[in-house]
Amino acid sequence: MKTQRHTADYYINGLLEGDKFVLSKSITIIESSLLNDVDLSIQILNGVSGRSGSSKRIGITGVPGVGKSTFIETFGNYLISKGNKVAVLAIDPTSSMSGGSILGDKTRMNDLSRNANAFIRPSPTKKTLGGVSNNTRENILLCEAAGYDTVIVETVGVGQSETLVKGMVDFFLLLMLPGAGDDLQGIKKGIMEMADGIVINKADGDNIGTSKQAKLNYQSALHLFAPSESGWIPQVMMCSSIHKIGIEDVWQMILNHRDLLIGNGDLKKMRTAQNVDWFQEQVSRTLVARIFENKEYVKLRNQLEQSVLSEDLNPKEALSLMLNKIFPR
Amino acid sequence: MKTQRHTADYYINGLLEGDKFVLSKSITIIESSLLNDVDLSIQILNGVSGRSGSSKRIGITGVPGVGKSTFIETFGNYLISKGNKVAVLAIDPTSSMSGGSILGDKTRMNDLSRNANAFIRPSPTKKTLGGVSNNTRENILLCEAAGYDTVIVETVGVGQSETLVKGMVDFFLLLMLPGAGDDLQGIKKGIMEMADGIVINKADGDNIGTSKQAKLNYQSALHLFAPSESGWIPQVMMCSSIHKIGIEDVWQMILNHRDLLIGNGDLKKMRTAQNVDWFQEQVSRTLVARIFENKEYVKLRNQLEQSVLSEDLNPKEALSLMLNKIFPR
Repeated sequence: MKTQRHTADYYINGLLEGDKFVLSKSITIIESSLLNDVDLSIQILNGVSGRSGSSKRIGITGVPGVGKSTFIETFGNYLISKGNKVAVLAIDPTSSMSGGSILGDKTRMNDLSRNANAFIRPSPTKKTLGGVSNNTRENILLCEAAGYDTVIVETVGVGQSETLVKGMVDFFLLLMLPGAGDDLQGIKKGIMEMADGIVINKADGDNIGTSKQAKLNYQSALHLFAPSESGWIPQVMMCSSIHKIGIEDVWQMILNHRDLLIGNGDLKKMRTAQNVDWFQEQVSRTLVARIFENKEYVKLRNQLEQSVLSEDLNPKEALSLMLNKIFPR
Repeated sequence: MKTQRHTADYYINGLLEGDKFVLSKSITIIESSLLNDVDLSIQILNGVSGRSGSSKRIGITGVPGVGKSTFIETFGNYLISKGNKVAVLAIDPTSSMSGGSILGDKTRMNDLSRNANAFIRPSPTKKTLGGVSNNTRENILLCEAAGYDTVIVETVGVGQSETLVKGMVDFFLLLMLPGAGDDLQGIKKGIMEMADGIVINKADGDNIGTSKQAKLNYQSALHLFAPSESGWIPQVMMCSSIHKIGIEDVWQMILNHRDLLIGNGDLKKMRTAQNVDWFQEQVSRTLVARIFENKEYVKLRNQLEQSVLSEDLNPKEALSLMLNKIFPR
């Protein structure tokens, strides 16, 4: 795919002016794996680095059906009504095959997407050996440079992408349905423990009773986990995105969390630590990916996996064969 | 350290005869990183492969002070009284610096360690880039070959080693103290969700009341997590290792779990999947470790980490510099 590129200054200036079109194009460059684009994207990121970092970065997750889009639409519109500019980035690891995305359906977040103060963009992920890789971290920086003071990162809540998102946001919000405790929510193990807040969506009408019970259940479950180092105690709330009830409280919770983390210096510390973690992880991941650009290695790895699966080889032997191929003695 | 080595047959025969001394020596070979020992260890593993795999593999974790040693001593002696042979392997990631181990203190598990039907061995871990690496998986196979029908893998419950252990055992047991819900247990987030069973230790004397309350709390918390694919529902029990109360029930729980997993074919499936996971993970980990045997790369990586930490470089730029060094264009 040949695309025309401008100079770094073109993108930098456009971003600093808050130009949505340029923001969109810059994200495309960041997501490109072409060597020239990698250079250009670093120039762009450096060019706007003084302007990024100031937004509230919020991760939102929950299983399909929990009402993430409706929540983000209501929540986003509320924030804009309070004078904020809102960017929504969505990570969908399941879209890597088709190239589609959870935001592909244009009818979702209809109101929000038409709002001049909102920017919505899917962030398709590429499947690499050992996990999901994407550029959402950089996309956040670009949105911030373009003047968005609130960046929401949406993810599906059933895969690997939550750890990824947790590592790039300030506040991690888990949406749940009423009727907790019936084991039907399919939320992946470990995700609940990452949450800075749990919001029970669809807490309206006939659901009020089960929502209150779910709230108590989650509160007692969260209480069993060790508190975070910042001293923040995760909270459980109820809301109705459709009836726009409880939305303000969710925002207030996020602001309280932010105040605490700014007050004790943890916000800055957390973000720097996130950057270092990202660097370390990406070094390992990218090295492995580069080595397995060699098709012969991939073929051997697949064969060895099959042999381990069929118990023709013990895994230590398989490992030894793999290493001897890549690093001959 | 130059150590005399015998032929593979010497170790294989000794293992199959249940010779504790040879078992101990074989583990040393498995843990060696010398190239010749790697070859020898693969020969040994292949030589005994027909005899390994039959044991009940049990992971036991819990924070320091929960009484892991006392529990394992009581539990192990109970198992031996029922005609079992018990091996205890301990993983201690904190020992990687000193070379010491959680089993270094010889006064621990005094009775058990003197029993002819018990074998106790620490399994020190080496810190590698990206995590903890060790050979406990292979050590389990050696213990099985030497006739141990129950292999207990002990870990500290506060670090990374739990995921490692979860990936090599059939049943993962979490020991907790009475008085749950007071946030003082320091158990790492995510560990509770890995447990196939939670046992509240020290449920005796004045602790009975708080133990019962803790049991209810954990039961309701576990209920919030999605059930495992095998259909096993994690159970919560109380026991007193000192007064030897409830030990039989814990064993019965583990046997019930095993019956379920053998009945539905999941035990075999789980173990094969564990092997494939191990292979995939080790390939990535070992490749990265081999690359960073180059001291220059390590130096650059440390410098780049510092630059990211001090915000002189954005992490994407740091990554790019690292990759250009290792794979010059």
